[in-house]
Amino acid sequence: MRFATLKDGSLDGRLVLVSSNGLQAVDAAPIAASLLGALQNWDAVEPALRERTAALEAGTATGIFAFDPAACSAPLPRSPQWLDASAFLNHGRLMERAFNTPPIPHFDTIPVMYQGASDDFLGPHDEVPMPSEADGIDFEGEFGVICGPVPMGVTPEAALGCVRLVVQINDWSLRALGPHEMKTGFGFLQAKPSTSFAPLAVTPDELGDAWQDGRVHLRLHVDSNGQWFGHPHGGEMNFSFGQLIAHAARTRRLTAGTIIGSGTVSNQGRDAGSACLAERRVIEILDEGAAKTPFMRYGDTVQMQARWPDGREGPFGVVSQRVVPPGSEQR
Amino acid sequence: MRFATLKDGSLDGRLVLVSSNGLQAVDAAPIAASLLGALQNWDAVEPALRERTAALEAGTATGIFAFDPAACSAPLPRSPQWLDASAFLNHGRLMERAFNTPPIPHFDTIPVMYQGASDDFLGPHDEVPMPSEADGIDFEGEFGVICGPVPMGVTPEAALGCVRLVVQINDWSLRALGPHEMKTGFGFLQAKPSTSFAPLAVTPDELGDAWQDGRVHLRLHVDSNGQWFGHPHGGEMNFSFGQLIAHAARTRRLTAGTIIGSGTVSNQGRDAGSACLAERRVIEILDEGAAKTPFMRYGDTVQMQARWPDGREGPFGVVSQRVVPPGSEQR
Repeated sequence: MRFATLKDGSLDGRLVLVSSNGLQAVDAAPIAASLLGALQNWDAVEPALRERTAALEAGTATGIFAFDPAACSAPLPRSPQWLDASAFLNHGRLMERAFNTPPIPHFDTIPVMYQGASDDFLGPHDEVPMPSEADGIDFEGEFGVICGPVPMGVTPEAALGCVRLVVQINDWSLRALGPHEMKTGFGFLQAKPSTSFAPLAVTPDELGDAWQDGRVHLRLHVDSNGQWFGHPHGGEMNFSFGQLIAHAARTRRLTAGTIIGSGTVSNQGRDAGSACLAERRVIEILDEGAAKTPFMRYGDTVQMQARWPDGREGPFGVVSQRVVPPGSEQR
Repeated sequence: MRFATLKDGSLDGRLVLVSSNGLQAVDAAPIAASLLGALQNWDAVEPALRERTAALEAGTATGIFAFDPAACSAPLPRSPQWLDASAFLNHGRLMERAFNTPPIPHFDTIPVMYQGASDDFLGPHDEVPMPSEADGIDFEGEFGVICGPVPMGVTPEAALGCVRLVVQINDWSLRALGPHEMKTGFGFLQAKPSTSFAPLAVTPDELGDAWQDGRVHLRLHVDSNGQWFGHPHGGEMNFSFGQLIAHAARTRRLTAGTIIGSGTVSNQGRDAGSACLAERRVIEILDEGAAKTPFMRYGDTVQMQARWPDGREGPFGVVSQRVVPPGSEQR
């Protein structure tokens, strides 16, 4: 199943089911009015949602309409909890050099994860208000999962069974503010404004062979201002989503709708490029002595999409965003 | 106005208005079914809520019933966002010694603040499940505010005008997990399980002269296992709640219902005692060479209440909790 949420002025939006070709949709109501509602009642609503999806594919459902990704909010416009890891160690090690911060202890055996704001996510085509061009505005391309209820102390193996949906994320970051917040030890806050999501949240079965070992085995294609920027592969993730969920649930239960992010997708091979500006900048410093690629300015754009191995648009749709001064944004 | 939320099996609970003597209550519905709903629609519902409060005080409201704090969840059982500062610098400086972490840069001029989990708060009498006695189980007595909508880039002065309610908090902490999470730079996650709240969330006018300069000028009385542990005064807070809200909103807007905490209430004068175990333990180390006071074990209890200057129970009611093994809790 492929879910999207259309903006309708409400906090949780209007849930729709989207066809596998991405062209058509049908309301999920009255089975489930919102994705959060569906996640809170998953076992009861899943069969009927699958039945309606089959009717959509067969063209027999009533009320089929053309799907418009530009009308979407994030699949969950608000979520109970948003926890983002740094599970591609290649990214983390480059960022230590970018930020000039000390090596993170036990980085390759204990996942690192920050708690992000989850009340105000941005949609795939929303303009992105940022308070200042001096803050080091950067994108971060990631994959993530949305969980059902997770008990405290879950094992990594059992945690994988709690994954309901897989998503694609643009974790906006302000690099000028990150190093200070890391040094306080209290973690990212101002450095992480509202996070954005690709339009479609999909059940793991939609990924086929690309969902293996609790990882998304697809390349994430990133364009910056219309130019190729990277296509790192999600399969290089050093911790699985099962391990990340278990880390998050070590001392708390997770309520339905909790989102766990992978951190920036990053590959050791340089040919893959990068999924954030900071990573390319530190590679430029290492290779050429100075960073050439600037952080984003107002008007700059970023596009992100996972693609199937044959190059077709992947299951999550496209993130396509522009950075703007605060107050001028179209949402 | 004094608000409480009674458990009714729903995610947001049943909102009630409580009399100033704390003995009687009346449903806030149909004006507002939940506190989150009231905060999202504050300007429209406040006059009617004040009118019903007046009728409750006069004994003329219909449906008045006896108020039972033990039947309460947190005033907001879930909230869009929970951000906790460390605004009593005396606490932070002692914790640096307790954790043996480097001094936080600009600690006295830039607030430090972590993002906490906000989907699963505990009520004032809920038992508190903790996964292991080896984790260094500790309480933290705090004050906090609940905000209406806050625009990105708000000034500290304007931010104070966004305060809708004042609350009293027990920010549970796992001290054995904190230092590692601080060293990662990603901030507290496993070290901060579900946070607890006193039963009553009150409008600032309920505090009278005790609400001044964006601070709660009351002592927070803390008992550990039935013994006096501390009564530090909230007026020594080094940053005001206006400054804390402005810090939080530097790069994001805050949606209605966002909670901002003060961090552990802490006074320089040793006579005031402490509002957390870790602080007393580091004072013991400094004064006597070794910590004598243990962290909490299963079965241990903590009580917290702000008191008026004449010693009467303060406006927020009492937090009274017991630590238990996971799965055995009564909620």
